[in-house]
Amino acid sequence: MVEQKEGTTIVLFSGEMDKAIAAFIIANGAAAYDHEVTIFFTFWGLNALRKDEPVKLKKGWLEKMFGRMMPRGPKKLGLSKMNYMGMGPKMIQHVLKKHNALTLPQLIELAQEQGIKLVACTMTMDLLGLQKEELLDGIEYAGVAAYLGDASQAKVNLFI
Amino acid sequence: MVEQKEGTTIVLFSGEMDKAIAAFIIANGAAAYDHEVTIFFTFWGLNALRKDEPVKLKKGWLEKMFGRMMPRGPKKLGLSKMNYMGMGPKMIQHVLKKHNALTLPQLIELAQEQGIKLVACTMTMDLLGLQKEELLDGIEYAGVAAYLGDASQAKVNLFI
Amino acid sequence: MVEQKEGTTIVLFSGEMDKAIAAFIIANGAAAYDHEVTIFFTFWGLNALRKDEPVKLKKGWLEKMFGRMMPRGPKKLGLSKMNYMGMGPKMIQHVLKKHNALTLPQLIELAQEQGIKLVACTMTMDLLGLQKEELLDGIEYAGVAAYLGDASQAKVNLFI
Repeated sequence: MVEQKEGTTIVLFSGEMDKAIAAFIIANGAAAYDHEVTIFFTFWGLNALRKDEPVKLKKGWLEKMFGRMMPRGPKKLGLSKMNYMGMGPKMIQHVLKKHNALTLPQLIELAQEQGIKLVACTMTMDLLGLQKEELLDGIEYAGVAAYLGDASQAKVNLFI
Repeated sequence: MVEQKEGTTIVLFSGEMDKAIAAFIIANGAAAYDHEVTIFFTFWGLNALRKDEPVKLKKGWLEKMFGRMMPRGPKKLGLSKMNYMGMGPKMIQHVLKKHNALTLPQLIELAQEQGIKLVACTMTMDLLGLQKEELLDGIEYAGVAAYLGDASQAKVNLFI
Repeated sequence: MVEQKEGTTIVLFSGEMDKAIAAFIIANGAAAYDHEVTIFFTFWGLNALRKDEPVKLKKGWLEKMFGRMMPRGPKKLGLSKMNYMGMGPKMIQHVLKKHNALTLPQLIELAQEQGIKLVACTMTMDLLGLQKEELLDGIEYAGVAAYLGDASQAKVNLFI
């Protein structure tokens, strides 16, 4: 009898810094306990994977507009509460550093070092006009079927 | 030894179009992989099940007000991000059609065709003053106990 | 062969009354079915555990500000939808009482009576400057590792 592998999957749907931090803290914790961990980035969650700098790409009008209006990378995300026109995220980053806790970019780096599978949802990339060149290097690309395959094998499955 | 049935349950609490789309894409994907799938609609998620047209019903003052203020059906839901006074949902619908992806009403239809169990939470229906006549035909009605029964049997349980 | 214990865990990340009510209804339902239930309060979810009255404590400037700006206890939480500057929560509380449903403070009390493990996330308590004296009596304190331990044993794991 083969024992079921311990696994954890997280769908990161939300594009807010506090939710992304929670997702990565759980994911990094699970990886430290030797779980196989997948984070599946879809909809606004994809913004956490964007590179800081704009990438020159051929895009239609609507895709360009989406690209400009959505936050570019983990440092630019807002908060789900107490955002105060962008003051909130600055306060949270200040507080994280004061407590020697990892900031979101550092949590993402740690996740990659720990071998956490970061998967960008190709369907929502299409919808929002995001292209591979704009996203972090070293991530995977897949659809909902791949997510469901991982989730069926995992014990802990969260939607954030 | 009886093998555990593959199952997926989703609590749809949120009343936003993007979250409902994500819920139905995951649910329809899981059903395509032969999972038993249940979506349990509670609180604002119930609005995704409302019929487009108002239904004449005897209601108290507060129930009438809730009924008027909440979005009537899947086409009227807002977005959790970039709603822009209702422009956002129109853009998303445009983009879905452009990419030959299913819109929310189509995803709901597909879910019913695939035999996904759509369950309206009777307790929150009471609270919000929603009656069966106002909701989609062919759905089920149950409470949290029924949800927990399904969730205990399922591998993938999400709260959206 | 040892049978797997039925367990349910909920991460309560959100600080809104409607989401906290949903979390406690599911948790209390699961406890009634004899599940081992843990609610792990993190980020804004911690506000549901705060005492109604301010507690005199030595705090830094930023911690004091967080303490003042965040809602103090379950009666002060807003709604995720239709908050209307605080009118919404009052309407929901009115509707709960009208239907003889439990209000959030009553749901929390019931959870404690049923032996549901209420765990405050120590890491986010630090970040938000919340101290044990400000939170409900009889709760536990732990980090993400303890949560993951419980979640790995549970069948139903939700992030709310």
